[in-house]
Amino acid sequence: MRNIIEDTITQAVVASMREAEDARLRTVMTCLVQHLHSFAREVKLTEDEWFRAIRFLTAVGHITDDKRQEFILLSDTLGLSTLVTAQNNQKPSGCTESTDFGPLFVEGAREYKSGDDISNGASGEPCFVSGRVLSADGSPIASARIDVWQSDEDAFYDVQRRPESSLTAEHQTRGRLSSAADGTFNFRSILAGAHPIPHDGPVGRLLDALGRHPWRPAHLHFMIAAPGYETLVTHIFRNGGQYLDSDAVFGVRPSLIADWVRHEPGVAPDGTSLGDAFYTLQYDFVLNLRNI
Amino acid sequence: MRNIIEDTITQAVVASMREAEDARLRTVMTCLVQHLHSFAREVKLTEDEWFRAIRFLTAVGHITDDKRQEFILLSDTLGLSTLVTAQNNQKPSGCTESTDFGPLFVEGAREYKSGDDISNGASGEPCFVSGRVLSADGSPIASARIDVWQSDEDAFYDVQRRPESSLTAEHQTRGRLSSAADGTFNFRSILAGAHPIPHDGPVGRLLDALGRHPWRPAHLHFMIAAPGYETLVTHIFRNGGQYLDSDAVFGVRPSLIADWVRHEPGVAPDGTSLGDAFYTLQYDFVLNLRNI
Repeated sequence: MRNIIEDTITQAVVASMREAEDARLRTVMTCLVQHLHSFAREVKLTEDEWFRAIRFLTAVGHITDDKRQEFILLSDTLGLSTLVTAQNNQKPSGCTESTDFGPLFVEGAREYKSGDDISNGASGEPCFVSGRVLSADGSPIASARIDVWQSDEDAFYDVQRRPESSLTAEHQTRGRLSSAADGTFNFRSILAGAHPIPHDGPVGRLLDALGRHPWRPAHLHFMIAAPGYETLVTHIFRNGGQYLDSDAVFGVRPSLIADWVRHEPGVAPDGTSLGDAFYTLQYDFVLNLRNI
Repeated sequence: MRNIIEDTITQAVVASMREAEDARLRTVMTCLVQHLHSFAREVKLTEDEWFRAIRFLTAVGHITDDKRQEFILLSDTLGLSTLVTAQNNQKPSGCTESTDFGPLFVEGAREYKSGDDISNGASGEPCFVSGRVLSADGSPIASARIDVWQSDEDAFYDVQRRPESSLTAEHQTRGRLSSAADGTFNFRSILAGAHPIPHDGPVGRLLDALGRHPWRPAHLHFMIAAPGYETLVTHIFRNGGQYLDSDAVFGVRPSLIADWVRHEPGVAPDGTSLGDAFYTLQYDFVLNLRNI
């Protein structure tokens, strides 16, 4: 350990962890150190580049707070989140695929009844969403907890616009519902549009330097939980929308793309008469049984 | 890009960077993403582990400020700093080896004349340090700028003890000197002891979980700069001291271990008569010519 040079440092660090009580931690950290060192060797990382990386991570840390998680954004934009989600959510054929959780979910969003308007005053074209929560054998799942969240027509989520103090009172285009006895759910909201991930910080500057845009294709976030089933975290993407082939966080799956159907002014699914055009979206979610 | 699964995500992320104008940035980030993904695949990183990593990095970011650089500490303890230093400082035989810079250097430390006491009132056993700054051909380098910094007998650096407001006035056991026309330098300080890296934060908790201690063997930091030469960043380690074989940041090189010679009370190198025992350290530094 006192003659550590370029060729011996990796083995020295690995050896230093031999007393770790948590074998899994030792395995993970050993693999991390080996790849971190291999990376630095392969590109022959310079001292200046190392220091730029230190400054970058410091900036990521300093912009992160209760409302903004720049490390998750970094993980998302480097595809790590998608990889971790994919390798931990392999399911039988027929189950709805998972995708990234993202940094914009909020605990404690308002609860709604079936048919309610979760836009809560946000402006945008009306969109009526309906579907069923099912088990893989096609049987309905009653009383599933359904969290939904989306951006508004200005491409912002409510938490990106509003001061923290008014968060709970002012939630818009997010809420919690339950599936009915026959597994159905429905709610009114507004049409989701493409939206950029927060890109006024260090991750945005990195994307810019890499020639990448910060946009995500239009999507609705869903998190669906029911006793005995794996909790499903996913999005539904709008067919025909922009950025489906260049999602900044690599979240698109073909099975999660659905048609938002446009309707001329007339009677909406909830029986009201609308003077403007509106959209409908229908999607059934299939949950995977939890392993006992 | 819309059918991204575990097997295709890495290629998708690499492809997303194809428009980067800076070819070196593209090379570095491509290699980083490949290793980051390989790591996550090899250990089959779970979603819970991923989230613990996000929380860990967030804590590293939040404890980092102008006086404390926890990301550098993390790099140091994972051996990355030693690797980057080693692969960027390969020198002809005979030149003094480089080692880690560390997070405890301070800009604007006080300037001293040859023979001054840089301890500036810090308590500890007196130590008289002398040596020469040389070129590889043995010729002296005059007017080299010599920065030196070390911990005190309580195992703290001044910046770990003092409030920021009094930093400049109260610097202790750190300073800047110049070599004389014949390349020599000498100063009085105190005996450096082993000291722990700052371990009350997330990096300290990680070391603890890994069964590692936070201690560094006794050392003096030097940074020596002269026109026409590569700036040397190194330490001198105390022969016989504890932790030489388990330095928490992997900085020890055999060529950098030197004898601190203990002397009974009597006449010190600066001619003063001391009633207590004292130490002397002599070390010559050999700088490498800068490539033109």
